[in-house]
Amino acid sequence: MPDHSILNRVVRVAKRADGIPTPDCFTVSDEKGGRAPPGGVLVKVIYASVDPGMRGALSRENNYSRVLDGAVMPAMGVGEIIQSSVDSWECGQLVYGSLGWQRYAAVTADQLFWPIVPDLAPPEAWLGTLGINGLTAWLGLHQVARPKAGETVLVSTASGGVGGVVGQLGAAARLRMVGLTGSPAKVALAEDELGYDHAIDYRQADNLEAEIGRACPEGIDVFFDNTGGTIADSIFEHLNVGARIVQCGTAAIASWLPKPQGPRRERDMLVKRLSWHGFLVHDFVNLFPQALAELKQLYVGGALTSRSTILDGIDQAPGAIAKLYAGEDVGRLLIRI
Amino acid sequence: MPDHSILNRVVRVAKRADGIPTPDCFTVSDEKGGRAPPGGVLVKVIYASVDPGMRGALSRENNYSRVLDGAVMPAMGVGEIIQSSVDSWECGQLVYGSLGWQRYAAVTADQLFWPIVPDLAPPEAWLGTLGINGLTAWLGLHQVARPKAGETVLVSTASGGVGGVVGQLGAAARLRMVGLTGSPAKVALAEDELGYDHAIDYRQADNLEAEIGRACPEGIDVFFDNTGGTIADSIFEHLNVGARIVQCGTAAIASWLPKPQGPRRERDMLVKRLSWHGFLVHDFVNLFPQALAELKQLYVGGALTSRSTILDGIDQAPGAIAKLYAGEDVGRLLIRI
Repeated sequence: MPDHSILNRVVRVAKRADGIPTPDCFTVSDEKGGRAPPGGVLVKVIYASVDPGMRGALSRENNYSRVLDGAVMPAMGVGEIIQSSVDSWECGQLVYGSLGWQRYAAVTADQLFWPIVPDLAPPEAWLGTLGINGLTAWLGLHQVARPKAGETVLVSTASGGVGGVVGQLGAAARLRMVGLTGSPAKVALAEDELGYDHAIDYRQADNLEAEIGRACPEGIDVFFDNTGGTIADSIFEHLNVGARIVQCGTAAIASWLPKPQGPRRERDMLVKRLSWHGFLVHDFVNLFPQALAELKQLYVGGALTSRSTILDGIDQAPGAIAKLYAGEDVGRLLIRI
Repeated sequence: MPDHSILNRVVRVAKRADGIPTPDCFTVSDEKGGRAPPGGVLVKVIYASVDPGMRGALSRENNYSRVLDGAVMPAMGVGEIIQSSVDSWECGQLVYGSLGWQRYAAVTADQLFWPIVPDLAPPEAWLGTLGINGLTAWLGLHQVARPKAGETVLVSTASGGVGGVVGQLGAAARLRMVGLTGSPAKVALAEDELGYDHAIDYRQADNLEAEIGRACPEGIDVFFDNTGGTIADSIFEHLNVGARIVQCGTAAIASWLPKPQGPRRERDMLVKRLSWHGFLVHDFVNLFPQALAELKQLYVGGALTSRSTILDGIDQAPGAIAKLYAGEDVGRLLIRI
């Protein structure tokens, strides 16, 4: 039976964006009723995520995920189960899953990732370090790049949701961690808290390529790239023979229609025998349990922290992606629903 | 004791080239005498190779191999041992190794790759299908790209020294092989003899990208690239999710100073989760015995042929690299010394 006492505030996709989605790409409305679907649950959402990947999902271009017009905006979230029609999930249980930008998520069990253990870490951490961001960092670093102790890793968004975890994981693995980030405060955060041996404010750099060279006297063995574009170009010259590039995001380029031009990479690839990997965490679902177990252990041991910036209220959601790309926030950007 | 009856005609490097090396980059001279060095042999050279990689070795740019001014031009060759100061090699033995553009090569044993068995294949074949070209094809395909049966492989120089072997290896492994090449005669050769299901004359194509699409109705899983540049650009749009790119050469681009511009690849890498590998056969020396054993078996079984175009006389050597890049020849380009 639908619970008619429920008033579900929902953010739906109204139209696509050419670049960074603006508030008018969404509608916010109150919809009556809510119930657990067969084989699913009804979740009261506590926090929902804001991700760089949302820009791609809302673009007109080819992408790995697409959102239909009129659909609830997909997003990861944490919440409390308030109705259940499956044995495996109970009312009162806190859960992490694909809940969307809405107050009440009626989802099937396959949309739920794992239960939240509040004694281990607060709900925000389960949307960051112990959620998809942490998995992305761990799998990209340890499954794709596979650095050896002592190697130098450069991360192009050192204080972001993923980059902040990569820094700490690298420090725990005795790697030399160098990060790029976009303000003096973020440089301090990256160096003081996020495991980086050295961080560079790319917006202030007179000659970014030279600064990277000074920060990486033995060259770069792993380039964990969340930006692409001219920032990434400054790094290519410093890659060592045999270096690995993990292409985890392309945040520096707002639109790929038409395709932007840049330096050709064929010769760099060949002469330095580089390996460049496009990386999407969802291709590694079978390794999620292993990665999460490692992340939990590091978190409990104090080697990992979780940072978030929280926007208060679901009505902030339509403007949240633009906020994320403005780069003012540190750690994971969340919406308190 | 030097053998003063020997008159060694030698091609030496006179200067570097900005693009494709021209005859004036070399000197040809007769030098008296010759002897096996300690721990080495004196080889009477029969054939020497002409390789696309020679352009890079003679350029002013950063490269994986560099040739000193005044040095004998390095090249693979086959020849007969006429003096030996090591137990492992006997006079009269035919051998494949790094012999250089010269009539008599005085080399240490580490420059010799393996003995030639003339009953198995003629000397030309040991410089092609059973030499570095064959190893490059086998290791690039089976160690780097690792295609599964039924996948589609596109090779950007189908009838070249390496591409001609890749085609045949792919056919033997039940892959769908599609090749690009530069003349109607080469298209016929690729389809009739070199294992390609379909070959495209890229010089005649009105719309190369569309033709590639028609030839690869299920997309491309492996791109074995010897060219780079705009030819490679036509292929990127047809790569499947999870496709592998083997960057084996960059023949389509004559100079990398200044670095040419092209479409940025960051988004393609990410959205399609591509893996792009710079590949240099010499990084796989420990696998040469395995690769050679496989190539010999396929050759003896009739699954592999070897094709060469032969230039007659060492005096042809200085102009040979330009001939190679003019693209008029099929198979391996050799100089009969």
